[in-house]
Amino acid sequence: MRKEYLMTPGPTTVPERVLLAMARPIIHHRMPIYEKITAEVREGLKWLFQTEQEVLIFAASGTGAMEAAVTNLMSPGEKALCIRGGKFGERWAEICKAYGVTPVNVDVEWGKAVDPAAVDEVLAKDKDIKVVYGQATETSTGVRYPVKALADVARKHDRMVVIDGITGVGVFDIKMDAWGIDGLVTGSQKALMLPPGLAFLALSERAYKAAAESKCPKYYFNAAKELKKLKENTTQFTPAVSLIVGLQESLRMLKEEGLENVFARHEKLARASRAAVLAMGLKLYAPDAASPALTAALSAPLDGSKVMKTLRDSYGVTIAGGQDQAKGKIFRISHMGYVDEWNVMLTIAALERVCMELGLKFEHGAGMKAALAVICEK
Amino acid sequence: MRKEYLMTPGPTTVPERVLLAMARPIIHHRMPIYEKITAEVREGLKWLFQTEQEVLIFAASGTGAMEAAVTNLMSPGEKALCIRGGKFGERWAEICKAYGVTPVNVDVEWGKAVDPAAVDEVLAKDKDIKVVYGQATETSTGVRYPVKALADVARKHDRMVVIDGITGVGVFDIKMDAWGIDGLVTGSQKALMLPPGLAFLALSERAYKAAAESKCPKYYFNAAKELKKLKENTTQFTPAVSLIVGLQESLRMLKEEGLENVFARHEKLARASRAAVLAMGLKLYAPDAASPALTAALSAPLDGSKVMKTLRDSYGVTIAGGQDQAKGKIFRISHMGYVDEWNVMLTIAALERVCMELGLKFEHGAGMKAALAVICEK
Repeated sequence: MRKEYLMTPGPTTVPERVLLAMARPIIHHRMPIYEKITAEVREGLKWLFQTEQEVLIFAASGTGAMEAAVTNLMSPGEKALCIRGGKFGERWAEICKAYGVTPVNVDVEWGKAVDPAAVDEVLAKDKDIKVVYGQATETSTGVRYPVKALADVARKHDRMVVIDGITGVGVFDIKMDAWGIDGLVTGSQKALMLPPGLAFLALSERAYKAAAESKCPKYYFNAAKELKKLKENTTQFTPAVSLIVGLQESLRMLKEEGLENVFARHEKLARASRAAVLAMGLKLYAPDAASPALTAALSAPLDGSKVMKTLRDSYGVTIAGGQDQAKGKIFRISHMGYVDEWNVMLTIAALERVCMELGLKFEHGAGMKAALAVICEK
Repeated sequence: MRKEYLMTPGPTTVPERVLLAMARPIIHHRMPIYEKITAEVREGLKWLFQTEQEVLIFAASGTGAMEAAVTNLMSPGEKALCIRGGKFGERWAEICKAYGVTPVNVDVEWGKAVDPAAVDEVLAKDKDIKVVYGQATETSTGVRYPVKALADVARKHDRMVVIDGITGVGVFDIKMDAWGIDGLVTGSQKALMLPPGLAFLALSERAYKAAAESKCPKYYFNAAKELKKLKENTTQFTPAVSLIVGLQESLRMLKEEGLENVFARHEKLARASRAAVLAMGLKLYAPDAASPALTAALSAPLDGSKVMKTLRDSYGVTIAGGQDQAKGKIFRISHMGYVDEWNVMLTIAALERVCMELGLKFEHGAGMKAALAVICEK
């Protein structure tokens, strides 16, 4: 017998309730029954995004909504500030370049959070920068960025700020309206506990004004046209019906738990995981700015890819390795979405076993003990 | 007790086998288990598209692949011939315009098929036209276009031809390689019997050469980059994992039935439906060019929307009404995908009942008798 445990930062485990909802016979999207689902989902997404704005839904991977956040706000030749502290920050700059937008890069060492003062400085110098693009969590490094501080800096200079909250929305507090965020992106396969295939984008009023003047070409990802259709509880193009039905269920689950409880759960599981890794004598990749979504640990003296592969192939626990420059150096344990305290405990137990086998010297049991201590906190 | 029957031209009914496959716990897409599924799916799609080329898979609605077929082949300022005989032909022209490509429209009366001679004439006159964009079935009118003849005309003038086979691939014979088609598009929610959310695009060698020189901006829908990843059994961006798992199952079902049998089934069910509609004294919207995917009937003297709504709301049989200029004038019964002879019979029975109730004068039972006669043919 072999059981599988998915502890990766996307896709995350899909709850049985959601799987069963999506396994019901498919319905047609231009029908009253579907419009009713859309109406419920619209309200749920506004609640999740902490905004009065509509949250647009695209049938796409999260990157589709990132592209929409560029092509709907910018025009060719304009400048955008891209915070590049990992693979997904680099993606902002790549999208800009593909559409003739000039990225002004604020490069951040992998494993560190961006310093809002660095963004402040660049914005002060370059009045032509129109939008600041950044992440809530740079998933490739497990680093959480100071979203509110970034929004404050952008506000101060009267620029727009767009946050890739793919690994953030539904994990920790991001107050779109209260903090003055102009664009907030997420995807279905993270805290929303769904399979990948839905991308979400909420825009502020001034972002829609910019969209009206934007000259980047777009058709599939046209925000203004999609907004008009969404207000009629429909979409421009055939929506990913089964995922929307799943979304209705996963939003209900999040509402039942309550946003504050959802955030507190992620925060506690993250602390438990970090405590375990440290107690095993390993170091965190981002000690000062670890995201509550995932724990990235430096694997030295072990090979991070080997830790990941042994956990997966020998013991059925799938975590993530490092990407690009972090490949082999780190492993990443997600505690995002449909993850409870016992999922974290079993993962730490399996991690201890693998680290023993691979010859890491540490006090056996110390990781589990440290994690359980955090979990038992009142 | 109320049972629901979905007889719409997309989404189509998802088989139980596929629903159950998709309800299995989600897997991660950067893992050997997923690469194995992708390898199987790649082979299955080539078989379905009748091509040696790779079939790119995007997490998107079918329109996403249509956009990719424009932005990867064309540059701003270039000309494309768009066959406009319905809502989806209009979409080709809209996408072109959005990206600065000049559409040269060949307009076709709704309910008629395009005359290849008309395309021939325009191509002969205008040497600047680079690509011919058309449909296999114009779903909004239920008309089948002569794909081979269109490809022949394009070949004759040494232009490229791209076919939106969203309602066509897996319904009737479209030989991509043998006919020299340069781009073939489909979506998941039609003959592939899946929920919406996957868009497919196969390109010919010369289309890839054009792609290398195309200057339309693209990022999410970049064909050349996607091709490179697909050959490694992966994707640029997170794929719609659950739908890919469903695709593996639906391709297996199609292979078990055999492509010739799949085409023959659609053709027979279409003939049965058309015979029923005619026997009830109604007229076909496209008598000379009805697609085997769906039967579009003129509803006069009845209101087509009322026929559709009564069938759905009173009897649980969901068909489609008309769109745009055909609204109220027609209704559309799909027999595409996971539809057998008894699904068609129950739909005709329900249609007879509704037509009786709405006061249509016809010989009761004549529709069912005519449909069954076709179904009983050897």
